[in-house]
Amino acid sequence: MKRIEDYIIAVPDFPKPGVLFRDITGILSDPDGLKLTLDTFYKTLENVDFDVVVGLEARGFLFGVPIAEHFHKPFVPERKKGKLPRETVEITYNLEYGTACMEVHKDAIKPGQRVVIVDDLLATGGTAKAAAHLVEKMGGKVECFAFVIELADLKGSEVLDGYRVESLTKF
Amino acid sequence: MKRIEDYIIAVPDFPKPGVLFRDITGILSDPDGLKLTLDTFYKTLENVDFDVVVGLEARGFLFGVPIAEHFHKPFVPERKKGKLPRETVEITYNLEYGTACMEVHKDAIKPGQRVVIVDDLLATGGTAKAAAHLVEKMGGKVECFAFVIELADLKGSEVLDGYRVESLTKF
Repeated sequence: MKRIEDYIIAVPDFPKPGVLFRDITGILSDPDGLKLTLDTFYKTLENVDFDVVVGLEARGFLFGVPIAEHFHKPFVPERKKGKLPRETVEITYNLEYGTACMEVHKDAIKPGQRVVIVDDLLATGGTAKAAAHLVEKMGGKVECFAFVIELADLKGSEVLDGYRVESLTKF
Repeated sequence: MKRIEDYIIAVPDFPKPGVLFRDITGILSDPDGLKLTLDTFYKTLENVDFDVVVGLEARGFLFGVPIAEHFHKPFVPERKKGKLPRETVEITYNLEYGTACMEVHKDAIKPGQRVVIVDDLLATGGTAKAAAHLVEKMGGKVECFAFVIELADLKGSEVLDGYRVESLTKF
């Protein structure tokens, strides 16, 4: 029986030399892989009380919407600046080189709502932590992070210390 | 009883003055709206014979993955150039100003496979037509386009003449 990690493709030297990229398109391109991954998310989040699913652009959209559909919860896309058409709340954060800015619609998260943040990958945790701060800036509470993959060596879970982190696989 | 169009928010002057943007985040943020939209896609595609779902970055990911999950078919992301880590096939096409380039992984579509192309919106049809040509370049056959919204005045369906086009709503 195949495990989730068996559907993930290791791609050397992407996006730059020396980096081993973990490619989740191998999950998507096999219906059994997609079903296994989504069913594992559903089971993992079954005992989490939450009101809203936030998916991070763009790979967080792939897994976030089926989770929202399954639990009959709202899905909120968190996008790179300039993509969302209505009034937004934004957060700027540091990347390896320079800064990035993400935003969500201002009416998307209400004070007191409990949020699950979904993305494909936990690496250094910088983007995930910024996403949590954005939720908190809007008065929401991050109940849980849900990732397909955690790159354990990069210690992203330490950056997310204090939050519940669920990673379906670790490399 | 609410219809899909009731969940779509009209946003004036986005992304530029004079444009009335149809915002699908109103579908996503209401679980009933998401369920209605996805259930309507499932019903619409029930009698379409297809092997693969192709979703166009980024809003096509939102609806394409649940469709792939529902029908137990592979999901293939078509992305802007430079985002996919493995060997790709690409297509360059004209936009209002300049050109754009999209790509899919080379092994994602096999000769003879029947493809449903999913996106949120059919406007002028330029992006959709390029996506069809990319599928055909790989030996696939476009069985159907599936959009949440068709902007009828822009006559995108004429650009897609000869293809089956299913739009859940028209404005």
